[in-house]
Amino acid sequence: MKVVIIGGVAAGPKTASKINRLCPDAEVTIVEKGEFLSYAGCGLPYYISGVVKEQKELMATPVGTVRDSVFFQKVKNVNVLNRTEATAIDRENQTVTIRRQDGSEALLSYDKLVLATGASAVKPPIPGLELGNIFSLKGVEDAEAIKAKLAEHSAPNVVIVGGGLIGVEVAEAFVETGCRVTMVEFLPNILPILDPEMAILVEKYFNSKGVKIMTGTKVTGFGGENNIVNKVITNNGDIAVDMVVMAIGASPSTNLAVDCGIKIGPTRAIKVNAQMQTNDPDIFAVGDCAEKMNIITNEPCYIPLGSTANKEGRVAANAICGIDDQFPGVLGSTVCKIFDFSVARTGLGTQQAIDAGYDVVTCLAPAPDKAHFMPDAKPLMLKLIADRKTGKLLGAQAIGLGVADKRIDVAATAISAGMTVTQVANLDLSYAPPYAPAVDNILTAANIIRNKIAGAMEGITSKDVKAMFDAGEEFTFLDVRSPGEIEQMRIEGSLAIPLGAIRTSLDKIDKTKPVVAFCKISLRGYEAALILKQNGYKDVKVMDGGILMWPYSKIMG
Amino acid sequence: MKVVIIGGVAAGPKTASKINRLCPDAEVTIVEKGEFLSYAGCGLPYYISGVVKEQKELMATPVGTVRDSVFFQKVKNVNVLNRTEATAIDRENQTVTIRRQDGSEALLSYDKLVLATGASAVKPPIPGLELGNIFSLKGVEDAEAIKAKLAEHSAPNVVIVGGGLIGVEVAEAFVETGCRVTMVEFLPNILPILDPEMAILVEKYFNSKGVKIMTGTKVTGFGGENNIVNKVITNNGDIAVDMVVMAIGASPSTNLAVDCGIKIGPTRAIKVNAQMQTNDPDIFAVGDCAEKMNIITNEPCYIPLGSTANKEGRVAANAICGIDDQFPGVLGSTVCKIFDFSVARTGLGTQQAIDAGYDVVTCLAPAPDKAHFMPDAKPLMLKLIADRKTGKLLGAQAIGLGVADKRIDVAATAISAGMTVTQVANLDLSYAPPYAPAVDNILTAANIIRNKIAGAMEGITSKDVKAMFDAGEEFTFLDVRSPGEIEQMRIEGSLAIPLGAIRTSLDKIDKTKPVVAFCKISLRGYEAALILKQNGYKDVKVMDGGILMWPYSKIMG
Repeated sequence: MKVVIIGGVAAGPKTASKINRLCPDAEVTIVEKGEFLSYAGCGLPYYISGVVKEQKELMATPVGTVRDSVFFQKVKNVNVLNRTEATAIDRENQTVTIRRQDGSEALLSYDKLVLATGASAVKPPIPGLELGNIFSLKGVEDAEAIKAKLAEHSAPNVVIVGGGLIGVEVAEAFVETGCRVTMVEFLPNILPILDPEMAILVEKYFNSKGVKIMTGTKVTGFGGENNIVNKVITNNGDIAVDMVVMAIGASPSTNLAVDCGIKIGPTRAIKVNAQMQTNDPDIFAVGDCAEKMNIITNEPCYIPLGSTANKEGRVAANAICGIDDQFPGVLGSTVCKIFDFSVARTGLGTQQAIDAGYDVVTCLAPAPDKAHFMPDAKPLMLKLIADRKTGKLLGAQAIGLGVADKRIDVAATAISAGMTVTQVANLDLSYAPPYAPAVDNILTAANIIRNKIAGAMEGITSKDVKAMFDAGEEFTFLDVRSPGEIEQMRIEGSLAIPLGAIRTSLDKIDKTKPVVAFCKISLRGYEAALILKQNGYKDVKVMDGGILMWPYSKIMG
Repeated sequence: MKVVIIGGVAAGPKTASKINRLCPDAEVTIVEKGEFLSYAGCGLPYYISGVVKEQKELMATPVGTVRDSVFFQKVKNVNVLNRTEATAIDRENQTVTIRRQDGSEALLSYDKLVLATGASAVKPPIPGLELGNIFSLKGVEDAEAIKAKLAEHSAPNVVIVGGGLIGVEVAEAFVETGCRVTMVEFLPNILPILDPEMAILVEKYFNSKGVKIMTGTKVTGFGGENNIVNKVITNNGDIAVDMVVMAIGASPSTNLAVDCGIKIGPTRAIKVNAQMQTNDPDIFAVGDCAEKMNIITNEPCYIPLGSTANKEGRVAANAICGIDDQFPGVLGSTVCKIFDFSVARTGLGTQQAIDAGYDVVTCLAPAPDKAHFMPDAKPLMLKLIADRKTGKLLGAQAIGLGVADKRIDVAATAISAGMTVTQVANLDLSYAPPYAPAVDNILTAANIIRNKIAGAMEGITSKDVKAMFDAGEEFTFLDVRSPGEIEQMRIEGSLAIPLGAIRTSLDKIDKTKPVVAFCKISLRGYEAALILKQNGYKDVKVMDGGILMWPYSKIMG
């Protein structure tokens, strides 16, 4: 059996190695247009920042062997043709045309073909994009160029265009080397993988680190002198600049597939079934060029990630070798580090869940990530999204200085299994004070959702409270924190009565007006709401996330 | 409705607060014989070590409010009778006899009674146990006494009797203050919650920190002078000592229950149903006094943990207030910190799984806990235990400097959901280089089990390899690491041929003898085994965990 694999970065080599282990007699050839094989693209931000010292570390195995073509030949029994481009696929004759660096061409015949052509940085048609010092961040070469500029200290003003994952991951590297960094995002918030109230808190954290965030801002052009960029032109004014990093996303590389009639899905990536098979049963697609399925909605999506590429490679190899296997799809789980902040998410966002037809119930649960008496406990802000009808967990988002990835990985596992919030609340997670609170953050969050579904608690978002203030609505905004906490910071317009005094202070709370209760995290707010309801108050809500997650102005000290 | 709750440390107050929220008209009374309420017993080792500075931090809410009786009355509307002992239960008349500190007695009547009487440190009948400077570690008073001795630096030689969770957690505090610490364990290994080959690696880590471990050692008595202990007498000789900490476990406090005819289960804890109800429908038991059910085997077990107590309190409160809820049981998930090592586990251990009738397949997967090119990546040794027939995950254990709790919490969630290793291998966990390898450790481990179940790989434990050496068996112990790795360390009796040279070195490997292949972690060992099998070798095994998890002697340098 002859197998040709086009693409040698992540999914391709994985597929090749696995085929070789399953079918040692298969003749496997990888065609890669670049020099490098199997490099860790996700490591590039850390190479730029200097956390990863040498380029070759991104290409080596854990024991330091560089994965070059000799390595693949000797260890994996896989032929590698690098610096070689696949230029056409002839499905009828089952051949791939390749062109070597010297311009010579050849035909490779195949029994099975695997497309692992990856993705490329989106380059929008913005005037001036061709100017010098405008970089994207897709390959090792981009990273080298940016690194060189940083080393020169010749580009003190940096604009990052795009507030997605790559944009936020790379910002730290620029700040650390002393650049003034502005992030420009077209949408109303950065990180559209998060719900808006979570994204706003990340923006505030970025601000605290000196990064200027311009949201709702469209880049309409770049200005320059001597072919070097010196200005980013936007609908919100021009920004003087010495370097620009374009980070507005990746689009699947599908030209080869399109040209030979392989079907493209609605996300513009290559359409595949659960065996990673395209509409041609002898052609498979894996990694960043292939469309994914969302496990929850069963709808196609395009979320190109190295972690997914690897799993798809295994499934494709199994299918090619006649072993029954299928890829269940993805949840869009992801995590990123922003200075000391972690941002992680999985499953459906609130709007996505609403759009998918769910009766959505959400909660915000800010809490220390470890037992609160441990000095290294750090705050974690967790949001869960669930279906009110079935109680099923649909999504989770976590941000903060605390450990976010652990809770998101538990949520991803629970969502994959179709667990309800009641099942999540009873999970026997590992506990000791240096690792978690006795009731882990995700269990607390699941219990809040249970309370909401049971009707014991009606939540309201900080955004909706702000809107009530802005509209001049009459309501009591009841802060039930202790006097000491209130002295440190409070929200204008709130009425302060500590939880312990509520039962004896009912005369101070107007029974005819709606009440929105809150505290630091809104657990005491919940207890206050219950007391009020027991005492005949009809319209009592609890503000999700408490003052800790209130993103608007506060009166300090 | 009158509810009396006996016990005010963890499960009791949780039950009380939840009942108050659900049924505000209920009259809830907590009877607690000690002074303190709601303190975090799991925090005591960190109070002794000084990580937690003040005792009251263990008793405060996250915002610093101490949970005293005034707090419970004003905030939770719960009466607290502390320094008050419940001495008898009259089930027929539904009353509890209480005795106050001044010796006066009273009767409390109840409609529902909750036993949250906790557990006490096991005090075995060893001669000399009454001597001074022999402490247990169950309450705040014990911790204060130990702390005082450490502050005096008057007890340089410490013996910890018992190598369970509490024993290992507290060891660090003694080492840090300059004590010479010996841990004495009756069983063949410390930490019986781990499989032996994992426990041995923890013992070696303890040794590296200067803690002497004496396993298979029975304490038969204590010797002393002037009523102060100075000698621990064991079957392996006497140990000179200035202080002893007894940490041989906890037993449920069930006297009150037994005296009034409440049924006790096979684990000697109070038998309860899924609503935490005892054989008397008006009497519930929660927390460390109550028996648990193992989710996998559906067999009773006794694993007293604060994380479980909380969940049980909620279920009992729901049941008392007429709300349908049930506690699904536990997996024995736990984690502990030993210096910089994390030790975590969930589900069934290997022997437990065999005893429960499963056809057990296991794997060892040592790997960096983050992308290997990140400088702060640390090794994590992960073991999975699964059922060969169904592929279901049954248990997981993780130890090392790397992040263990995350993988164990994912495993606990997967086991609760009845997931197979194939489902685990395809989980969409969050990935970025600072948080995980592109293929997370638990996915790699699940894939190893899949390979074993598919017959692609036959594993052998290091223990069995050692036994083959000891028995003088003829076999090739094939080390396929690179020459550079072999120079640093190797195992005596091994044959070194790097993986890349195997295909051209078959003449050096005797085809008539069994082969056991390995590398650093046994991934290359697996590839070598496949190559050998393709070349007609019949008896080829791969050593689980590679040289990284080989616990016996190695030749260094």
